[in-house]
Amino acid sequence: MNLGHIKVIVFDTFGTVVDWRGSIVRDLTAWGDSCGIKADWPKVADAWRGEYEPEMDRVRKGQIPFAKLDEFHAHALEDVLNKFKISGLTKAQFEHINCAWHRLEGWPDAVSGLTRLKTKFVIGPLSNGNVALLVNMAKHAGLPWDNIFSCELFRHCKPHPDTYLGVARMMNLAPAEVMMCAAHNNDLAAAQNAGLATAFIPGATEFGPRQTTDLGATQKWDIIAADLNDLALQLGISQM
Amino acid sequence: MNLGHIKVIVFDTFGTVVDWRGSIVRDLTAWGDSCGIKADWPKVADAWRGEYEPEMDRVRKGQIPFAKLDEFHAHALEDVLNKFKISGLTKAQFEHINCAWHRLEGWPDAVSGLTRLKTKFVIGPLSNGNVALLVNMAKHAGLPWDNIFSCELFRHCKPHPDTYLGVARMMNLAPAEVMMCAAHNNDLAAAQNAGLATAFIPGATEFGPRQTTDLGATQKWDIIAADLNDLALQLGISQM
Repeated sequence: MNLGHIKVIVFDTFGTVVDWRGSIVRDLTAWGDSCGIKADWPKVADAWRGEYEPEMDRVRKGQIPFAKLDEFHAHALEDVLNKFKISGLTKAQFEHINCAWHRLEGWPDAVSGLTRLKTKFVIGPLSNGNVALLVNMAKHAGLPWDNIFSCELFRHCKPHPDTYLGVARMMNLAPAEVMMCAAHNNDLAAAQNAGLATAFIPGATEFGPRQTTDLGATQKWDIIAADLNDLALQLGISQM
Repeated sequence: MNLGHIKVIVFDTFGTVVDWRGSIVRDLTAWGDSCGIKADWPKVADAWRGEYEPEMDRVRKGQIPFAKLDEFHAHALEDVLNKFKISGLTKAQFEHINCAWHRLEGWPDAVSGLTRLKTKFVIGPLSNGNVALLVNMAKHAGLPWDNIFSCELFRHCKPHPDTYLGVARMMNLAPAEVMMCAAHNNDLAAAQNAGLATAFIPGATEFGPRQTTDLGATQKWDIIAADLNDLALQLGISQM
């Protein structure tokens, strides 16, 4: 694919731009310390992430209506708190924990890489995270997005094609003028099927020490980059 | 209204943040010079702005479906070109002129004022401009928005209440946690009716030398500010 006419780059967020697992573990640990609640926080984080995916799958299959990811997080959090026998939380405490996903931190390359890419392209997240979550995360982590292309705008969860095509339509562009960047091969496969250009950044530690998937590209992508700064370099933006 | 819990400030854009008339006149004049087309460009700009408002009114009345402002601009531009006997344009030339609205310049206080406000609040346009128009305008004029809250997201034109309430819902906030800032009293009246906080910046030259409306506040707003930097100051952000 000729990459000379790319105008917009959208990014998977959880795992590609921000370290959701490390951030959630640090956030919950600090919160637990502050109110004297002890738990195996890495296991809580893994269980929480594991719980909400099946609910999104039910949206993908049309079994339940689309909802904000904040709501799926809250449903899953209730289950996880029960499972780990954490009880007696006030409504404000529950909300505070549920919004840990609004306080995720970028990977070390996130701010510098995105800042470089922003000089030449319109950049935004294309994430199953809802708008409020992604806006608050950007403020917290300093992510310099031009716009938040949350899947909430398209009322479908990735990898539904309307999410990728929705960005192109909204920006008055052909699909090939939009690039999807992700650390997940299945996200890129769906974007490529929709006609978008693709950039893969191999994951390594998103899921912690047990990670076995997405360690490398499983098919041919337009760009494979070591990190976001390398992506900028491969797209012709030299060191700032 | 207590303004201590404001989290998000949204801004009317055409006239409040950017100088649409001056920008359109300069853009069309430069384009005309480059291809040898002469016209009374200030009159063309006024006619163009005058032409698309009635079409948005038909959307407001439910007579025609919602569409991107780019489309309304294009319909109006066809009429205006006929009226001013400008003919023989290629499709690319027509598109270039129609996208003059993507290349508007900020008022002198826009970038500095928004940059200050961004340190404390989530900021974004709430404009009848469509997402692509507002994203491209922000890149062109250097407007540091956190997110584009285009009316396109809510499928209604301002001053429909769903546009103001849509921002609050999307950000998980109560209406009173959102402030609308505009140089137009009617925009603020609708925002106030929807429960938002309001900030008025008196207009003076938006419509050129013939301006007679919105020179001052016509009712009580939460803040009346001289410009965006004064708004920042009144909201507790001292000079950076």
